[in-house]
Amino acid sequence: MTGGRLSRRSALGLIGAAGAVGVTGGFAAGAARDDDAEPQESVVPFHGKHQSGITTRVQQHLYFASFDMTSTATREDLKSLLADWTDAAARLTQGREVTTEGATGGGPYKPPDDTGEALGLEPNALTITFGFGPTLFAADRFGLEKKRPKELVELPSFAFELLEDRFSGGDLCIQACADDPQVAVHAIRNLSRIAFGRAQVRWTQLGYGRTSTTSKSQSTPRNLFGFKDGTANVFSNDDSDLATWVWADGSDQPWLAGGSFLVARKIQMLIESWDRVRLEEQEAIVGRDKGRGAPLSGGSEFTEPDFDVVSTAARGPAIPMDSHVRLAHPTQNGGARMLRRGYNYVEGNNDLGQLNAGLFFLAFVRSPEQFVGVQRSLAKDSLNEYIRHIGSAIFAVPGGIRAGESIGSGLF
Amino acid sequence: MTGGRLSRRSALGLIGAAGAVGVTGGFAAGAARDDDAEPQESVVPFHGKHQSGITTRVQQHLYFASFDMTSTATREDLKSLLADWTDAAARLTQGREVTTEGATGGGPYKPPDDTGEALGLEPNALTITFGFGPTLFAADRFGLEKKRPKELVELPSFAFELLEDRFSGGDLCIQACADDPQVAVHAIRNLSRIAFGRAQVRWTQLGYGRTSTTSKSQSTPRNLFGFKDGTANVFSNDDSDLATWVWADGSDQPWLAGGSFLVARKIQMLIESWDRVRLEEQEAIVGRDKGRGAPLSGGSEFTEPDFDVVSTAARGPAIPMDSHVRLAHPTQNGGARMLRRGYNYVEGNNDLGQLNAGLFFLAFVRSPEQFVGVQRSLAKDSLNEYIRHIGSAIFAVPGGIRAGESIGSGLF
Ligand code: HEM
Ligand code: HEM
Repeated sequence: MTGGRLSRRSALGLIGAAGAVGVTGGFAAGAARDDDAEPQESVVPFHGKHQSGITTRVQQHLYFASFDMTSTATREDLKSLLADWTDAAARLTQGREVTTEGATGGGPYKPPDDTGEALGLEPNALTITFGFGPTLFAADRFGLEKKRPKELVELPSFAFELLEDRFSGGDLCIQACADDPQVAVHAIRNLSRIAFGRAQVRWTQLGYGRTSTTSKSQSTPRNLFGFKDGTANVFSNDDSDLATWVWADGSDQPWLAGGSFLVARKIQMLIESWDRVRLEEQEAIVGRDKGRGAPLSGGSEFTEPDFDVVSTAARGPAIPMDSHVRLAHPTQNGGARMLRRGYNYVEGNNDLGQLNAGLFFLAFVRSPEQFVGVQRSLAKDSLNEYIRHIGSAIFAVPGGIRAGESIGSGLF
Repeated sequence: MTGGRLSRRSALGLIGAAGAVGVTGGFAAGAARDDDAEPQESVVPFHGKHQSGITTRVQQHLYFASFDMTSTATREDLKSLLADWTDAAARLTQGREVTTEGATGGGPYKPPDDTGEALGLEPNALTITFGFGPTLFAADRFGLEKKRPKELVELPSFAFELLEDRFSGGDLCIQACADDPQVAVHAIRNLSRIAFGRAQVRWTQLGYGRTSTTSKSQSTPRNLFGFKDGTANVFSNDDSDLATWVWADGSDQPWLAGGSFLVARKIQMLIESWDRVRLEEQEAIVGRDKGRGAPLSGGSEFTEPDFDVVSTAARGPAIPMDSHVRLAHPTQNGGARMLRRGYNYVEGNNDLGQLNAGLFFLAFVRSPEQFVGVQRSLAKDSLNEYIRHIGSAIFAVPGGIRAGESIGSGLF
C-alpha cells in the first residue's frame, strides 16, 4: 500500500451549507487507504462541542446499531469500551482504518485489526454518534444510578403500536451515517468487533434516502408514501431553535451538556394499502399536497400552514383535523418541535409479496417530552391506518468531546 | 410541477468509460420531475442491441426482484405484462414517472399511477433488465415449451449449498441498478404494481457497494471479506470477450440473440468467523493479497496469476491448490469466464448478534455451463468454510429492443 490522499477538490461542493464541516488534508502513511480510489468526499470533524451526526447535513445512508453490555461486563469494561470506541471513531470518521495496523499492517500471523472493506473508499462524510439507553443506568449494573438523566426512562406505550423486542431497546447505541453504505457498515462492524466480550449487538437498522434535511438548501427528500418529508424541521443553521429544542444544557446531569435525547422508532409502512388510496385522500391524510409539499391551506413548500383556512370542497378545514401535519404541528403541541433525521428502509417482502418497508424515524430532542407529546397527539392521526410502529428505543446522547477525551467520560 | 430538466454538466464524468451510454437533454413537461433537485446524473439508454444493466458500468445500488405469474394468469396476461413493463421501464430509466399521469397528474379521485418517492430525484443511471426463468416455459402454462432455450434448466445441486426456497427461483426477474437506492426501489415497486393480478413478487434482494466493475478504469470495489472483487472480470470494452462469454447468438432460440443467461446466487458470508482468520490465511484462501489485490504469485492487481510459482515459505504453490482464485481461474476451467456483476448485502443481525450479510452474486454468461463448471470446481475451495450459498436462480435474458418493440415479444 502506498500513501493515501484526500482531495480538497470537491469537498465543499459536496458538503453544502449545513453544519460545521471541515476538511483534512491527508493522513499518516501507515493508516492510508490504497491509492486507486477517486477522491470524492470530505471529512466531518469528530470532535467539537456537540457530537457530529445531529446537525450534520443528512448523509445518504445510515447504519444504526443498538448494543447490550454482556452479562459479565464490569464498570471498567464499560469505561474501557467507551475509550476504545472513541479512539476508533475518531480514526474512522477521518477515513482511516480502525487502528494504525489496519487491514494489512499487522503482519501475516494475526487476524487483521481492520476488516478492510472500506479500503480505497473516501471518508464519505462518515459521522459516528453514541448514545446511552436507560438500562445502562439501572441499579446493580455499572454504578451509574446517580448519573441517569431524570428524563431518561423507557418511553410510555402509545396507541396502535405493535412493538417487537428484536427492534427495541438497548444499553448503548451507535448511529453511523455516510454517503456510502459500505463506509457506514464498515464502521459499525469494526466497532462491534472492538466491543467483543464487553458488549454485543442487540439489533441494527440499515437506512437510505434520508427523510429529512437539516437545512432548506438541501432539497427535501421523499418518504416511501411519496411525500416530501422534513419540510418543517428544526434546521441546523438556527442556533436559537437548536438551543431550545435540541441541546441539553446539563443542568440535570453535567455530562449531558451539549448533548441531546435520541428517539428511534421503526415504523412499518403498509405500502400496498397506501398505494390504493386516491390522491385527494392521501393529501388529506398528510395535510400537504403531494407534488410540491405545500400545506393544503395554500402557498408553497415552506409557507406556514394556516389551520383556520376552510375548504368548501372538503366542507371543513383545508388541513383536516385528523391530518398528520395538523396533529404534529407545534401549535397543537404546546409549541414543541424536534429535529427529525430519519431514513427510509426496505427489507424485502413478506410471504404475501408485500414490501417490508418503512421509516426509521430518528428525532433529537432536548427533552423526551417533546416526542411523547407529539406522539400522543398523533393517536388521532388518520395516517395510523397505514403505518405501524414496530420498534422503539430512547438514548441519552452525551455532548461532544475534545481530542484526547473519551465519549461519556463524564459518567465515571 | 414545472418543467424538469436534466443537466449534461456532470453526466460524462459520472458515467465513465464503460459501456454504451448516452445522455438525453430533457423530457416532456407532463412527465417532468419537480424542479428543486440538483441535476447530478445521466441517463443510460433503455433501447439497444443488448439490454442495459449488463455491460453498463456497475451502479452503486441494486434492487432485484423475482416474480411468479399468478395461478390464473394466461398467455395473454404474460404478453400484456411484458408490453406494459417495457413501456414503464423505458420511461423510468429516463427519470420519468411510470405513466404520463405520474404521481399527481391523474386528478384527485384515483390512486396515483406513480408512487411518487422518486419525484425530484435524477435518473441516477437507472437500468432495468428483464429475464425469464425455466418455469415460465413449463408445459401447460403459457404455451412456451418450444421457445425454451435448451440450456435454460434449473441449476444442478452443488457441494455445501443450503438453498432456501424463499431466496430461489422465479418465472421472471427484474434487475434494477441505480446510483440512488430509492430510484431502484421505486422502479421495482412501480413495476410490481403494474403486474398486479398477472404476476407477484416471489423474493427481492437489495444490494449495495457493487463487487465488480465492467472496466479497469473503475477502481475495483471490495467485498465484505475486505478483498478486491472483480479484478479478473470480462470487461465491457472487450467486444470479442463479450461475444465469446456473454452474448447468446440466437442459434438455439432467435429471441435470445444479443441476450444472455443470468445466474443469481445469494451467498451468506460468515463474517465473524472470517474476521478471526489471520491475514496470511485469508490471503491463502483467496489466492491474492489483501491490500492491493495482486496474485500471490507476485506483481500488481492486474498481473496474470502464475500458478506454477512455488513459495518456499508456503512450502508449496504460491497460489495454493485450494485457493479461490486458482479454482475459479479460466485455466482450471477449460477457459471458461463470466461477467460478474454482484453486490454486497447486509440485512441486520441474527439472534446471536452475527451479521446477516454476504454477496449477491450475479453473473452473465453465454451458457450456464460456464457457471456450472466453475462452481463445481469450487467444491474444493477453502473459502467454503466461510460462505454458504442460500439462494439460487437462473434466467434467460432476452436481447435488447428498439423503441416501439416489447421485451420478449419474440416469445409469442
Ligand atoms: C411513517 C410514519 C410517518 C410519516 C410517513 C410521516 C410523514 C410526514 C410528512 C409527509 C410530513 C410533512 C412534511 C414535513 O414537514 O416534514 C411530516 C411532518 C411532521 N411529522 Fe411526520 N411522519 C411520520 C411519523 C412521524 C412521527 C412518529 C412523528 C413524531 C412523533 C412525526 C412528527 C412530525 C412533525 C413534528 C412534523 C412537522 C409538522 C409541522 O411542523 O408542520 N412524524 N411527517
Ligand atoms: C461469497 C463468495 C465469493 C467471494 C467472497 C469471492 C471472492 C473473490 C475474490 C476476492 C476474487 C479475486 C478478485 C477478482 O478477480 O475478482 C474472486 C475471483 C473470482 N471469482 Fe469469486 N468469490 C465468491 C464467489 C464466487 C462464485 C460463486 C463464483 C462462480 C461460480 C466465483 C467466480 C470467480 C471468478 C471466475 C473469479 C476470477 C478468477 C480469475 O480469473 O482469476 N466467485 N472471487
